[in-house]
Amino acid sequence: MTSTTHETAARLDAEDPLASYRDRFVGSETPLVYLDGNSLGRPLRTTGERLRSFVDQEWGGRLIRGWDEAWMDLPTVVGDRIGSACLGAAPGQVVVGDSTTVLLYKALRAGVAARPGRTEVVLDRDNFPTDRYVAAGVADELGLTLRWIDVDTSAGVTLEQVQEVVGEETAVVLLSHVAYRSAWLADAPAITAAVHDAGALVLWDLSHSVGSVPLELDAWGVDLAVGCTYKYLNGGPGSPAFVYVAERLLDGLRQPIPGWMGHADPFAMGPGWTPAPGIRRMISGTPPVVGMLALQDMLALVEEVGMEAVRAKSVGLTEHALALTEDLLAPLGVGLATPREARRRGGHVTLTHPAMREVTARLWEVDVIPDYRDPGGLRLGLSPLSTSYDEVARGLARVRDVLLDLGASGA
Amino acid sequence: MTSTTHETAARLDAEDPLASYRDRFVGSETPLVYLDGNSLGRPLRTTGERLRSFVDQEWGGRLIRGWDEAWMDLPTVVGDRIGSACLGAAPGQVVVGDSTTVLLYKALRAGVAARPGRTEVVLDRDNFPTDRYVAAGVADELGLTLRWIDVDTSAGVTLEQVQEVVGEETAVVLLSHVAYRSAWLADAPAITAAVHDAGALVLWDLSHSVGSVPLELDAWGVDLAVGCTYKYLNGGPGSPAFVYVAERLLDGLRQPIPGWMGHADPFAMGPGWTPAPGIRRMISGTPPVVGMLALQDMLALVEEVGMEAVRAKSVGLTEHALALTEDLLAPLGVGLATPREARRRGGHVTLTHPAMREVTARLWEVDVIPDYRDPGGLRLGLSPLSTSYDEVARGLARVRDVLLDLGASGA
Repeated sequence: MTSTTHETAARLDAEDPLASYRDRFVGSETPLVYLDGNSLGRPLRTTGERLRSFVDQEWGGRLIRGWDEAWMDLPTVVGDRIGSACLGAAPGQVVVGDSTTVLLYKALRAGVAARPGRTEVVLDRDNFPTDRYVAAGVADELGLTLRWIDVDTSAGVTLEQVQEVVGEETAVVLLSHVAYRSAWLADAPAITAAVHDAGALVLWDLSHSVGSVPLELDAWGVDLAVGCTYKYLNGGPGSPAFVYVAERLLDGLRQPIPGWMGHADPFAMGPGWTPAPGIRRMISGTPPVVGMLALQDMLALVEEVGMEAVRAKSVGLTEHALALTEDLLAPLGVGLATPREARRRGGHVTLTHPAMREVTARLWEVDVIPDYRDPGGLRLGLSPLSTSYDEVARGLARVRDVLLDLGASGA
Repeated sequence: MTSTTHETAARLDAEDPLASYRDRFVGSETPLVYLDGNSLGRPLRTTGERLRSFVDQEWGGRLIRGWDEAWMDLPTVVGDRIGSACLGAAPGQVVVGDSTTVLLYKALRAGVAARPGRTEVVLDRDNFPTDRYVAAGVADELGLTLRWIDVDTSAGVTLEQVQEVVGEETAVVLLSHVAYRSAWLADAPAITAAVHDAGALVLWDLSHSVGSVPLELDAWGVDLAVGCTYKYLNGGPGSPAFVYVAERLLDGLRQPIPGWMGHADPFAMGPGWTPAPGIRRMISGTPPVVGMLALQDMLALVEEVGMEAVRAKSVGLTEHALALTEDLLAPLGVGLATPREARRRGGHVTLTHPAMREVTARLWEVDVIPDYRDPGGLRLGLSPLSTSYDEVARGLARVRDVLLDLGASGA
């Protein structure tokens, strides 16, 4: 790293009002450069002890009584907390449980059922694989048609593209708020309004925006949303997802996996399934209590800092990465698969070069950890509260070193 | 507790070859009487530290690299281990993930799809609520008919009852191996054979038998099974479930929630869903890694002890509970909703009396923790490795005290 690069990063860190939060994360004291917080966030230092204490005190001490005392409400308590801290959602509309894939399935089926007679689901070809697979599966089982939006791999779905395809046949439009590869930040309020103009429902996948980009689901009039908690909410590998259903849709909403925990009275154990009033009806089986512990530590931090400050840091980090790319990597032929305009960009940055698969493998060997996404994309997930400007600079300096080792020389 | 009761229990504990295992569980040193191990097993003393260490070392230290190094295979590694230790299942047929309810849904849909043209699902009215709700939901969405078997609440489904209802229209028979209330232990090998004679598939819910009753799924020719890991496998509140699919059915098996993690190549992120070869196709979303940690401690214990020894202790405990009930409680009008014949009984015992709801509430106040199930059932879940004969005796002596306080006097 040149001294100018080093000085710039040091200055940005010194000026960063959130710089001290980094110390709260496990491993932040090590030289490892972690640029994949959008695949798996770092644990907080409080989390290990929280889990140990839960096992010995709450699970071991309270045993089955824990369900009555606290755990039964945890899916909605944690859901409301995600809603308030990150989603702009009033209480009673968010519940935690299942994987993102399973919740996508339940939400999409529920959305299609709420628009009877309509035969199309709209989505884009660059949406995250699980979203596409689930939509194709649902279309196949219900005899629906998928309407695909083609997008540039360095951008994402625009308002105009949605307006072109939605119509009287559209039941649900399923889109990612931030695209997993390009980081394109969709214009959610405008697209939601356009979907409503066609009489359809929108289902947003918030996996790459929750905890990184401020959301105002209630104000935007969003119908349905799902999201992941192991990225910017630091819930740990495979932590459960959440689903949002706008209050106005909850009455009469039917999801396809009716289980005892979504029943109006789980312990009545009666003959037929009566859905619980409100958002609990989206629950199927026994809530994953242990899986919901870690993310509560991160929610406390987001509540303390506020999503506007998180976003400001996130934009700062991605701008810094773009400037370094321009300086250090563009001369070696590295391109950008991420919007340059901050308002259309989420919390990660994807750099392109034919050698990036090999570059990623070599970086991992020297404890610099970005992610790789085909075709030729080096993806930097810059988790706002645990990533420093210096970490980004050290990482991109290493990308340059590796590219030079591989003989890259630009134009 | 009378001195005879005390002496008998002390003798049984002294003669119990597995008695020392009790010390390995959190809370076994306290006076609390825990008789609900079939709702939530106690944690092992090693589990809290395992979780803390996972957070700080594996998640915090390896970060996203943990997926390549270990976590990606965890659903099948832990699945195979459950298969080998508890299910009598050769490798490659069991996977862990989702809740029991979601896996029931996926397995039932897959089973029905594997018997095209057949229009009926058979189940019993006393099956666990979630099984009935899921079956009703699937029947409703696919236009199938439910064929109900009526059972006595103090027994369960018999071979003859199954033979009476299965036929050319039967696609899947969905039954619990051990009934959640009565503890009736179904004749799984004979029923499985009868279902096959009709050309149908069987789907066993093993939630109340896995880790308590030895299973031989491969030898019995079982097609599909699901089960829970937070009961006798001590996985913690809401730990993920498992699903078994016989190898001969895996080719061509289609489940309704195709996700990226069940794809043949999850990171190809290609346009269409190609199911993974083998059991991985049953996976939908990102595996719940943190939720799979605790149950591995219990699997190690079961591997050490062996399921035959576990079952012998389980039968010893339930026989002990029946003898005490006969002595102490039958004179107060307490009845039995559980088979007297050990070979038809699982690991729990349900005692009936009109006052049992109130009895349960009063017992909880004095740290004696059974469960209650309508109508009038006090359910004693006797987890074989963590429950002592003395604990059962102290618990039932307390039941007698409370019934006497409430004015019970028998006939």
